[in-house]
Amino acid sequence: MNFKMIFHIISWILFVEAGLMVPGMLISVVLQESAAVHGFLVTEGVILCTAGLMFVLTRNAKRGSFYQREGFLTTGLTWIIMSALGCLPFYISGEIPAYIDCFFEMVSGFTTTGSSILDDVEALSKGLIFWRSFSHWIGGMGILVFLMAIVPLGGRNQGFTLHILRAESPGPSVGKMVPKMKNTAFILYAIYFGMTILNIVFLLVGGMPVFDAFCIAFGTAGTGGFGIKADSMGSYSPYLQNVTTVFMLLFSVNFSIYYLILLKKFKAAFFDEEFRLFWIVVFSAIALIAWNVRPMYDTLEETIRHSAFTVGTIISTTGYGTTDFDLWPAFSKAIILFLMFCGACAGSTGGGLKQIRMLLLMKGLRRNIHTNLHPNEVKKIRVNGRVMDEVVMNNTYAYLVAYAAILILSFIVVSLDGFDVETNFSAVMATFNNIGPGLGKVGPTCSFSAYSPLSKLVMSLDMLAGRLEIYPILMLGSRSCWKSAR
Amino acid sequence: MNFKMIFHIISWILFVEAGLMVPGMLISVVLQESAAVHGFLVTEGVILCTAGLMFVLTRNAKRGSFYQREGFLTTGLTWIIMSALGCLPFYISGEIPAYIDCFFEMVSGFTTTGSSILDDVEALSKGLIFWRSFSHWIGGMGILVFLMAIVPLGGRNQGFTLHILRAESPGPSVGKMVPKMKNTAFILYAIYFGMTILNIVFLLVGGMPVFDAFCIAFGTAGTGGFGIKADSMGSYSPYLQNVTTVFMLLFSVNFSIYYLILLKKFKAAFFDEEFRLFWIVVFSAIALIAWNVRPMYDTLEETIRHSAFTVGTIISTTGYGTTDFDLWPAFSKAIILFLMFCGACAGSTGGGLKQIRMLLLMKGLRRNIHTNLHPNEVKKIRVNGRVMDEVVMNNTYAYLVAYAAILILSFIVVSLDGFDVETNFSAVMATFNNIGPGLGKVGPTCSFSAYSPLSKLVMSLDMLAGRLEIYPILMLGSRSCWKSAR
Repeated sequence: MNFKMIFHIISWILFVEAGLMVPGMLISVVLQESAAVHGFLVTEGVILCTAGLMFVLTRNAKRGSFYQREGFLTTGLTWIIMSALGCLPFYISGEIPAYIDCFFEMVSGFTTTGSSILDDVEALSKGLIFWRSFSHWIGGMGILVFLMAIVPLGGRNQGFTLHILRAESPGPSVGKMVPKMKNTAFILYAIYFGMTILNIVFLLVGGMPVFDAFCIAFGTAGTGGFGIKADSMGSYSPYLQNVTTVFMLLFSVNFSIYYLILLKKFKAAFFDEEFRLFWIVVFSAIALIAWNVRPMYDTLEETIRHSAFTVGTIISTTGYGTTDFDLWPAFSKAIILFLMFCGACAGSTGGGLKQIRMLLLMKGLRRNIHTNLHPNEVKKIRVNGRVMDEVVMNNTYAYLVAYAAILILSFIVVSLDGFDVETNFSAVMATFNNIGPGLGKVGPTCSFSAYSPLSKLVMSLDMLAGRLEIYPILMLGSRSCWKSAR
Repeated sequence: MNFKMIFHIISWILFVEAGLMVPGMLISVVLQESAAVHGFLVTEGVILCTAGLMFVLTRNAKRGSFYQREGFLTTGLTWIIMSALGCLPFYISGEIPAYIDCFFEMVSGFTTTGSSILDDVEALSKGLIFWRSFSHWIGGMGILVFLMAIVPLGGRNQGFTLHILRAESPGPSVGKMVPKMKNTAFILYAIYFGMTILNIVFLLVGGMPVFDAFCIAFGTAGTGGFGIKADSMGSYSPYLQNVTTVFMLLFSVNFSIYYLILLKKFKAAFFDEEFRLFWIVVFSAIALIAWNVRPMYDTLEETIRHSAFTVGTIISTTGYGTTDFDLWPAFSKAIILFLMFCGACAGSTGGGLKQIRMLLLMKGLRRNIHTNLHPNEVKKIRVNGRVMDEVVMNNTYAYLVAYAAILILSFIVVSLDGFDVETNFSAVMATFNNIGPGLGKVGPTCSFSAYSPLSKLVMSLDMLAGRLEIYPILMLGSRSCWKSAR
């Protein structure tokens, strides 16, 4: 195992993190939030010293022997260390007293989950609120992807970048948009950046204050969902809510679709099977929920707005709220739980199982039925006309198993705290799928503060496992990963 | 599609069913329960006429072209028709007024689920109670298996019997104990019969009334769980409860283990991987639940007795109760939900996903992690030292997908009735896994009567899908199954 190179990359990441913390710190300086400024300054010192020391000790690391194992381990460790240090401003400023709460909040930020332990978010300093929302944007597309796009760490070693991107990017297979992975990373970030700016402009046009527009757009783009007000998005105008609905859904689409559109390959974009499945699920869910909740709202406009917003916020795994869907009837709640499970498209900033996996699993099941009826026929699985490799099918099946195992295990551990089944199950679903709010005592109007430190730790790991698609986190606990012998 | 032969087999099944109904009818005659006698008599007439007509029309059916498709279709149709006619005594006697309730109750009986729509079971005629409990025993080992063991329908066509047994027997692969499938079926029933007698004797020794002993033993052997008293097993003595715990667990073990023991192959029996996993899960669950519920009971004996009984009743998917586990803390409920999910061993009378599938899925996941870390190594999956065919792995994975899909879909439909998430989710889990009681409003002290006819129909199909391991029921809805062209 090439530990030197792994920690060399992490030292780079920490330098980047220190830089990304500056805007939040400046806001605190300008607004004279002295506790927050103190917290930021001490943290900057800690991060820069750690990064510097790490960099010096690993500067002679070999680029060569870097394989899939190293890619997974780098990714898992990066995200844990980045969160453990990134949450220090909350802790040192004293604005969130318990360290486990700070860690949970920061993991929730980077993994774009949006679950919060804060009962009163508005009491937080503006600088810290900004850093908290900004972490969504950083985590959305992936910080390693960002690093790969700007720093030529691997030299000419293409595999190097590929192994890291594969570990950090969502979806069963990383789509190379262009032959060079470095350029793919760059294109992804360019689209991400452009769409975020567009989102901010639309919000500003609707009269949203500048600070709010940036924070809300960060949470939308990363499909994170940290609210900056006690009622999340409830008090914003219908226009602002609708803009957010649209952008949440846009950020849930595979970014390669946008690349195809930029290349004017409209046909390939619109006939993409995952793309179509996603919109079918979205519109069916909106229709069913709107029909189910219609007695609860006065006008059709209101019914559809809240239904569409909630479907958007859940399937994109963002987690903003305009209404308390915990009060909705059981049928709508069941659909919400289903949307939590299936999640967004691969290659987007959204979480969950991913639409493409749903598609592959359904096709796999159909093939299996066919094979059982006609044992002698060989049938291949195709997506967008291309035959799927059996390795991809095997990975997808194994992913479902790992998903179910983690879900069940976490649910059992979290149940030790004694809340009801609905609360515990939805809490695990909401964190593992990077959504944010659940149902019952962790519903849209509540927070995760009441859970024990053990449950918070488990759910932090769930958030990381969900964002990194399980394997990098699972492998941290696997013996054969740490063995240096090959 | 060889429809003639399919209906020829079903006509045989109906003759057998008419015969199996006689004991219940005789009890009603002796006890002078006139409504029940009337119900039984009319039903006998209907069944015999239907069977006779079917038999005459299909007597020239060809044995030859009978494949896996025919096997699945026969099984699916058999179970539905058998339930639709078998429930007539309840309906015609007027003791259960709505036909959908009668159907639900009968399906629950044959599939060995034990979920009931009866709010007061003790109000039912003894003859009907007997028929209801006896249906568990019939369904436990499978009525087609029974038919295959006694009637040489397929002549010398070995594939014929194999295709039917494969469709009706639980587990990913049918273990041939002896070269001839017909003899395997006979051995299975012999063990089943012997153990049931043993169970009855143990109950009678403990002072249980004869009628009760038969009914309770039928429910235990088939892992069904229809209670014959309002408090299920709560008012029986601790001895009788413990005997039932032991037998519920014994009937959850793969019957081929008993065959190995009969052959004195003790080593092969005790080192069977599924067998060992099953007992590890059982004892861990008992220990964890006992620790969790200890403040609720006065003595250690009571704590362990109720914990062991509940673990036994859930993992064996029986569904008897000695205590209202709906009042237990959340942690114990979480474990109960997990046990509902994993279920008993393959080749037993129990339901659920089956321990062997849990084992295969975990091994598949471990292999997948290994393959991701070391892409160039080829790794086979072994169970009991034998390499597993990739077809079995594929079937197991697809089974999990089908399982999840049916669970989610049923949960959404059942949620239309507006009960809470815990009630709806556990109701679907309890019926689909053939357990019986769930949590919340379908907990051990409640019934399924409050659900709408649509939900009852969905859950009836879930019970059938669970008992027949999904495919025979799924295929009834598949177009390519009905197409006669090949």
